[in-house]
Amino acid sequence: MDDPRLDAQLRFILEADQLKKVDRRGTLADGSRVENSAEHSWHLALMAMLLAEHASPSVDVLRVVQMVLIHDVVEIDAGDTFIYDEEGRADKAERESVAAQRLFAMLPSDQAAWLHALRDEFERRETPEARFAASLDRLAPLMLNHASGGIAWQHHQITVDQVRTINAHIADGSPALWDSASALIDDAVEQGFLAED
Amino acid sequence: MDDPRLDAQLRFILEADQLKKVDRRGTLADGSRVENSAEHSWHLALMAMLLAEHASPSVDVLRVVQMVLIHDVVEIDAGDTFIYDEEGRADKAERESVAAQRLFAMLPSDQAAWLHALRDEFERRETPEARFAASLDRLAPLMLNHASGGIAWQHHQITVDQVRTINAHIADGSPALWDSASALIDDAVEQGFLAED
Repeated sequence: MDDPRLDAQLRFILEADQLKKVDRRGTLADGSRVENSAEHSWHLALMAMLLAEHASPSVDVLRVVQMVLIHDVVEIDAGDTFIYDEEGRADKAERESVAAQRLFAMLPSDQAAWLHALRDEFERRETPEARFAASLDRLAPLMLNHASGGIAWQHHQITVDQVRTINAHIADGSPALWDSASALIDDAVEQGFLAED
Repeated sequence: MDDPRLDAQLRFILEADQLKKVDRRGTLADGSRVENSAEHSWHLALMAMLLAEHASPSVDVLRVVQMVLIHDVVEIDAGDTFIYDEEGRADKAERESVAAQRLFAMLPSDQAAWLHALRDEFERRETPEARFAASLDRLAPLMLNHASGGIAWQHHQITVDQVRTINAHIADGSPALWDSASALIDDAVEQGFLAED
């Protein structure tokens, strides 16, 4: 009955519950409220399973899903950093690394090492899996922002050049997804809810 | 550029955003608000990846994760049914089947068939993957309810006999997780926040 390994895993899982309280900057598609990082992570995992055919053919879908499920857990300590916040992004890596050390250390050491490796892989964007995961992480908020009529773009005074630059690496994970993203950006400009400068 | 298959997938993914607006009955661990079904699904997927060693050794983790990611999508139309609501559970299968027909039909037909198969597998609880997924779906709210001091149990006047009965199938997916669940139930009674009758 006594299982210290399982107890440690369950303590981490309970700690991870706090990701549901980390607010992002963008809203849900209907603009009713801002999205939180846990439900965002669910959305990315759903996208990974349904859109894998648009990634490199060799992509290991399970690893993509695992990466997106844990990629934001560090925000429990480090908070969400808005992709258009240049100041916040400067020390993002340092803040998130400290957070990963504390949080993953709650797990048995083999699983802690595994989550560090998954997170590092995601952040480096060198493997097909990490590039695809990063594409989804950009496409999801772009879709929601477009659907909401650009609420977050307008609120934070983001221009189309910023949107094109920050989302360009969608193409590295999936040229097809970048085509769709580009069409959404063009449409947002045309409809007048994404500023040209 | 024109890709009707991808367009259909993206429309479904945008529709799925509404799962973030489906409230469950239980709260987050800190009791600050009720949980929604999208963040609950993320939590289950995280549990699947970290707790798979406690399931049957043959379990296909990717299929477990896929099952938990989509198991509640039907609630967009059918709403969440409280596990202790006997009346609601009577027509749950019918309501959710109608919802699955509408929602999954938004996808290309091969993916629609795949999601129907995953959901049916989950609901039938006959495979090791489905039994493990169902265990996680019971253990997660039990952990949160225990952590919150039993808010949802008290609010809905749930007794320990109901909790033991409704959660007993955790053992079918993982005897180790059932040991942990039983310990939480016993502790909740001992601490006085789960009623004995």
